[in-house]
Amino acid sequence: MSSHGDEIIEATWTKSKMLYYLTHLYIRGFDHQGIANKITNVISNEYGINMRSINLDAHDGIFEGNLYLYIQNTDLLEKLITKLLNIKGVDTVQRKEI
Amino acid sequence: MSSHGDEIIEATWTKSKMLYYLTHLYIRGFDHQGIANKITNVISNEYGINMRSINLDAHDGIFEGNLYLYIQNTDLLEKLITKLLNIKGVDTVQRKEI
Repeated sequence: MSSHGDEIIEATWTKSKMLYYLTHLYIRGFDHQGIANKITNVISNEYGINMRSINLDAHDGIFEGNLYLYIQNTDLLEKLITKLLNIKGVDTVQRKEI
Repeated sequence: MSSHGDEIIEATWTKSKMLYYLTHLYIRGFDHQGIANKITNVISNEYGINMRSINLDAHDGIFEGNLYLYIQNTDLLEKLITKLLNIKGVDTVQRKEI
């Protein structure tokens, strides 16, 4: 559990309880117009994942930043990382300790 | 010019030169899933504006953050601010000194 970070939030739905783990991802790549939108589109629209925070900076043609996301399980996390790496320009997505 | 901030970048296109002013916007509102994507969608897809950085944090149902954008002129900036304020949940968009 500790590898998921210290913060866990719980959401009670009609028939089941869902646990979300605060997860830190570092992301880096080649900057181009709209890259932040593509990243948030994958997170929010394709996977419906809630964000605690997003910080992205561009400098010298490179962008890098950190995403803090509430993720249900490592299976979803692995799929998300693969999908983020498929975005044109993204060359690094690393899970970090919180 | 000083009100546009210190940093100006120049892009040479086929027939004209375009000047972009680094502009700082503070944004705040009620957090909901996908808010960061909606904000970046307006900036990147609707207005084609380049971002230097985006920092958004959510806490206690509120999100707030700072956007550093390369914007051509105050006319476009005013339209952008109006559009950002039209996003559901956004209640504050303020231009800040850089």
